[in-house]
Amino acid sequence: MSMRTVIENKVSWINIVDPSQEDIEHLRRYYPFHPLDLEDCLSSIERPKVDEYENYLFIVMHFPIYDPHARISRISEVDIFIGSGYLITLHNGELTPLLRLFEECHKDERARSKHMSRGAGQLLYGILDRTVDYVMRILTQVGSRINQVEEKIFTEDMRYIVEEISVIRRDVIALRRIIKPQIGVVSNLERKDRPFIREGMEVYFGDIVDGFSRAWDELEDHREVIENLSSTSDSITSYRINETMRTLTVISVLLLPLTLLAGIYGMNISLPFDKQPYAFYGLIGTMVVIVVGLVVLFRKRKWM
Amino acid sequence: MSMRTVIENKVSWINIVDPSQEDIEHLRRYYPFHPLDLEDCLSSIERPKVDEYENYLFIVMHFPIYDPHARISRISEVDIFIGSGYLITLHNGELTPLLRLFEECHKDERARSKHMSRGAGQLLYGILDRTVDYVMRILTQVGSRINQVEEKIFTEDMRYIVEEISVIRRDVIALRRIIKPQIGVVSNLERKDRPFIREGMEVYFGDIVDGFSRAWDELEDHREVIENLSSTSDSITSYRINETMRTLTVISVLLLPLTLLAGIYGMNISLPFDKQPYAFYGLIGTMVVIVVGLVVLFRKRKWM
Amino acid sequence: MSMRTVIENKVSWINIVDPSQEDIEHLRRYYPFHPLDLEDCLSSIERPKVDEYENYLFIVMHFPIYDPHARISRISEVDIFIGSGYLITLHNGELTPLLRLFEECHKDERARSKHMSRGAGQLLYGILDRTVDYVMRILTQVGSRINQVEEKIFTEDMRYIVEEISVIRRDVIALRRIIKPQIGVVSNLERKDRPFIREGMEVYFGDIVDGFSRAWDELEDHREVIENLSSTSDSITSYRINETMRTLTVISVLLLPLTLLAGIYGMNISLPFDKQPYAFYGLIGTMVVIVVGLVVLFRKRKWM
Amino acid sequence: MSMRTVIENKVSWINIVDPSQEDIEHLRRYYPFHPLDLEDCLSSIERPKVDEYENYLFIVMHFPIYDPHARISRISEVDIFIGSGYLITLHNGELTPLLRLFEECHKDERARSKHMSRGAGQLLYGILDRTVDYVMRILTQVGSRINQVEEKIFTEDMRYIVEEISVIRRDVIALRRIIKPQIGVVSNLERKDRPFIREGMEVYFGDIVDGFSRAWDELEDHREVIENLSSTSDSITSYRINETMRTLTVISVLLLPLTLLAGIYGMNISLPFDKQPYAFYGLIGTMVVIVVGLVVLFRKRKWM
Amino acid sequence: MSMRTVIENKVSWINIVDPSQEDIEHLRRYYPFHPLDLEDCLSSIERPKVDEYENYLFIVMHFPIYDPHARISRISEVDIFIGSGYLITLHNGELTPLLRLFEECHKDERARSKHMSRGAGQLLYGILDRTVDYVMRILTQVGSRINQVEEKIFTEDMRYIVEEISVIRRDVIALRRIIKPQIGVVSNLERKDRPFIREGMEVYFGDIVDGFSRAWDELEDHREVIENLSSTSDSITSYRINETMRTLTVISVLLLPLTLLAGIYGMNISLPFDKQPYAFYGLIGTMVVIVVGLVVLFRKRKWM
Repeated sequence: MSMRTVIENKVSWINIVDPSQEDIEHLRRYYPFHPLDLEDCLSSIERPKVDEYENYLFIVMHFPIYDPHARISRISEVDIFIGSGYLITLHNGELTPLLRLFEECHKDERARSKHMSRGAGQLLYGILDRTVDYVMRILTQVGSRINQVEEKIFTEDMRYIVEEISVIRRDVIALRRIIKPQIGVVSNLERKDRPFIREGMEVYFGDIVDGFSRAWDELEDHREVIENLSSTSDSITSYRINETMRTLTVISVLLLPLTLLAGIYGMNISLPFDKQPYAFYGLIGTMVVIVVGLVVLFRKRKWM
Repeated sequence: MSMRTVIENKVSWINIVDPSQEDIEHLRRYYPFHPLDLEDCLSSIERPKVDEYENYLFIVMHFPIYDPHARISRISEVDIFIGSGYLITLHNGELTPLLRLFEECHKDERARSKHMSRGAGQLLYGILDRTVDYVMRILTQVGSRINQVEEKIFTEDMRYIVEEISVIRRDVIALRRIIKPQIGVVSNLERKDRPFIREGMEVYFGDIVDGFSRAWDELEDHREVIENLSSTSDSITSYRINETMRTLTVISVLLLPLTLLAGIYGMNISLPFDKQPYAFYGLIGTMVVIVVGLVVLFRKRKWM
Repeated sequence: MSMRTVIENKVSWINIVDPSQEDIEHLRRYYPFHPLDLEDCLSSIERPKVDEYENYLFIVMHFPIYDPHARISRISEVDIFIGSGYLITLHNGELTPLLRLFEECHKDERARSKHMSRGAGQLLYGILDRTVDYVMRILTQVGSRINQVEEKIFTEDMRYIVEEISVIRRDVIALRRIIKPQIGVVSNLERKDRPFIREGMEVYFGDIVDGFSRAWDELEDHREVIENLSSTSDSITSYRINETMRTLTVISVLLLPLTLLAGIYGMNISLPFDKQPYAFYGLIGTMVVIVVGLVVLFRKRKWM
Repeated sequence: MSMRTVIENKVSWINIVDPSQEDIEHLRRYYPFHPLDLEDCLSSIERPKVDEYENYLFIVMHFPIYDPHARISRISEVDIFIGSGYLITLHNGELTPLLRLFEECHKDERARSKHMSRGAGQLLYGILDRTVDYVMRILTQVGSRINQVEEKIFTEDMRYIVEEISVIRRDVIALRRIIKPQIGVVSNLERKDRPFIREGMEVYFGDIVDGFSRAWDELEDHREVIENLSSTSDSITSYRINETMRTLTVISVLLLPLTLLAGIYGMNISLPFDKQPYAFYGLIGTMVVIVVGLVVLFRKRKWM
Repeated sequence: MSMRTVIENKVSWINIVDPSQEDIEHLRRYYPFHPLDLEDCLSSIERPKVDEYENYLFIVMHFPIYDPHARISRISEVDIFIGSGYLITLHNGELTPLLRLFEECHKDERARSKHMSRGAGQLLYGILDRTVDYVMRILTQVGSRINQVEEKIFTEDMRYIVEEISVIRRDVIALRRIIKPQIGVVSNLERKDRPFIREGMEVYFGDIVDGFSRAWDELEDHREVIENLSSTSDSITSYRINETMRTLTVISVLLLPLTLLAGIYGMNISLPFDKQPYAFYGLIGTMVVIVVGLVVLFRKRKWM
């Protein structure tokens, strides 16, 4: 679809959004890439990996993209070829931090110099650094949604809480699935020394590994906290069921005897005191005594 | 039962469906197979394995077959002998991707050339590649059933949700049990180099290992998502129990006092105002006041 | 209690049921066994183990015996001494497959030849092979009990389901505890080569290890399935509680207003229309209208 | 507080109950112990450990003491110095098996000879052997409490079951915490050979390791069984809630329509058949028909 | 913000609270620190780590600070540079044990001598020792809150219990997250020998590792106990729901038949015995008989 290039010093960054068959053809002609790697760039989601060749690396990485409609993070794939003097990124254009960095390098002399002057390895670091920040921002958003649930769990309607917990947990599962294999991929980059990733960059890639590890720790944290909230919300609902039951029971126990008494005095037979003018007040008084007695009993058993 | 052969170049593929005693006898006579291996071909389900001999391999693999009646995936076994110049598959004819590949090789010159021209190792890769695709399709179906539950969980009747979750979880357990040992079997094939699996095939078998690993990851994902759904459905049911209880309580609390009042004025004794012509309207008015008061109270406590 | 011997070729199998002090004394006199091992034979349940000595092995194995009264599998211990030219089994006579094999060897020339002609190692394999079959049969029985619960879970009374799940789960816990250490014991036998276990037997012991591993896998499967059933049965019970609550609520909501209306017209005061001859039919009509209205409302909210 | 000594052959066993500052001072003067170790003897609960020095070992072990008031097992610490020709135990006097062994050695010539004639290593073994027995007895008690819950779970009042499960589970958690590190400590003793623990004792310490491992296995077993009971008891309670709900619903559904009918015939208006002498029997008959009809319906739906 | 120094012998301890840009500038000028480390001191929360350089160590540690408002422990970071002759601590001033130790060294000659006379390694040990004590105190507080819940769980209102369990569990999750990586950091310090951490200090750092391990064990314990409490509280709530239900059912079953009987005798038709003067007593007697009968029935079924 769209292939654009930025050149600085001796490094060129080729960014291909939605790679078409011709783009791949172009790469095939001018670069020494293995046919299988080029095929992978066109096919859908692959597993994250680093394929190592003599004079280039083929890196497949995944990043989460939050889909607000499905309320879940989906996988967004970036394919990277890195060799001596070039770095090629292929993706579907969703990953804004990558696009933004490209724009900066494209427009701004200083950004270009900062990210590209020391070779392709430095540029790769720059890209990964941005994406780590991006991932951390997504996790922070998840964290603040969890905090909201935490604050409302003892007061809010449970329907909202239950749905929110379910949706966040679903998202955390998806994010874990996406983040986990990235650590392996970047550790791999850190460990091995290659000529076209300039020396002295390991420290920097160590930073990226650290970033993904922190992301992973935070996701673990999120997962445990959401489990706690889920368990708490279930306990609260059970508690409320008991409270509701208790209210119903208290009301029934208070009113049913009075209704029975009224029913008895409504029977069409000869009733004691039924001719007395103050029978009504006697009966009402009896009812009050019953109610007061029951209330005292409930208070004792801590039901009211 | 049925033994058919396709020959291409120097490789022959013998496909035996529902192997009979005679088929085994035939193999025993013409091939250097260990008696124990031949016995295994006749007996029921074995554990997946690769038995290595000097001049041939005996491979037992399992694949899932979805049984729509029991709504669960069952094991289907394929036994493979692979040696220099031949590949023999024994199974009960359920595994369609294998049958289809055999038909293709049988009928289509080009397919035969594509899958068999480079030796038995290539043919084995072809068979495994098809079965990986087949397994992924099964997992995609499970995934879409999970998605359906996910979409309906907040609206649908819980009976359907509970049954669906139980059945899918049962199937995921079965699939995990089937897929897991295959990774070991195929990794085993990838690692070791044998003369009759032509050199340069390791990369390809690496692909198959990758495929099964992806299948395993997806099953792990399915399992976590289904656990989340199960936990969510339980929370929703509890929530609904509370809501139903609350409705009953509200109705009872609203109507019981009125019934009591009516009961009191139904008593066969001298009642205050009972001779007044507007007593009825006074009592109805009192009832309305009680109801309105209770509704206001419920609104405050967020019960209505 | 009872010591019997079968001799074939140069191997003798001594089978001791309920070993008494004298039996042990006998072994002490004629065999080079360590006193601690002989003590172990008299004492109650030990941990499964293989104790290796220069010229004999002492093996303690456990097998499950299903106790139909307690509805749980108990441990049954077999102690085995194996040395050059002899194999001694000590147990309490519960383990039928072992007894049956002894009887076969005792009575049947061919069975004796088949199991004992190649030395004590072969006989040990024969015994273990039988017990593996026996263990698999027990697991199959557990599996069929699980299947029964699975089939009935959506229809049967929950009391039966809950009790059945609890009992099966208890039994699976017991079986896991019994089977697990056996794998280690038999792997141990497979690994090391000893003079009195004839060469070439490792493949066969590999078979036994495989058998116990399969048993373990099946138990893991059983455990996961029973967890699923337990979770499902809880969900179903919750669902049913809600359904029962809903029925009660629907009935109450339908009948309470009518009862109130009847109560109002039962009040001993001047009522509107009370002298009309068709007042009754008017009121019954009103009641019908109320019921129909409520039913329509319930239908809309999917409560009926 | 109290320091007593038993001497046999060349080994002396010094038993110090509730060590005071002077006791420690005494040890400091006459033994080559590290100051930190002596400090540890005065301070409260340490982690179990074996500190190895050139000519002595400092061992800290924990044993469970059941506290009947808190219904939980607490940690009881024993500090042991073992060197060439002496063994010193420091503890707070709670651990009866240790005290009893000391008394035996003190009073009984033969016990002294049996436990101390072969050196300090043998004495250490004797002490540990007793404490293993003691631990097993405690676990057996826990096991029998679990069995009681198991037997009563389907019949007894749930309040007792729930409390019992909670208390036993709490105790199992405490016991696991106490037992687990002991295995490491004793394995450590088994592995290394020291001059003052006479040669040939490893087999015996292997016995102790075995004992603690068995204790650990049994605790794992207890834990799983108690989880099963907890899950079962929750299922039973849910089941009972549904049964109680169902009883209430059946009663309400049976009686509410009759009450309504009676209410209707209690209205003070002209009623059909109200002047008939057999109206009463007609209405009662109608009521019976309603009840019988509802009962038949409930029977069909398996509610009664 | 505030930089203060204590000097003893040849060691100087520089304590910087809320490090400003100028403080960092100062360090940059006079010390050989890596720019990345200095940046870390200004930025927010890092992962705990030990960065090793030729002539200094950069240590980032985390400690929990209990936030009484949010009822959860937050991370408090301390950055430490340690080199030959100096130790520099940077933090935000929250960690009281560190501040207190600084004050002691500042004011008290003897404390200064005790903690700083043997070099920077000893001072580091002193600081870590204090913080371990501080962490243990926090865990003890959590433990006593758990004990309170444990004591009240069978008597107190569930709302309090549920909220308390949720809050404590949340705090335990946070504490686990904070404590866990510290063990790795301190183990790292223990293992490697550096010139500026004087020889013979490993034993002491072993003490610190031990302290953090004990903290971790206690947190594990807390976690298991809180899970037990959570499970118990859910069981109790379910039990209470059933009890409440049962009370309601018993009341309804007792009173509804009497109400029906009264309703029947309230019908405006000719009733049997309605003219008898003792009809009232007959009916009341019937009611008593019904109630007594039902009570006997309930007693039998253990509902009362």
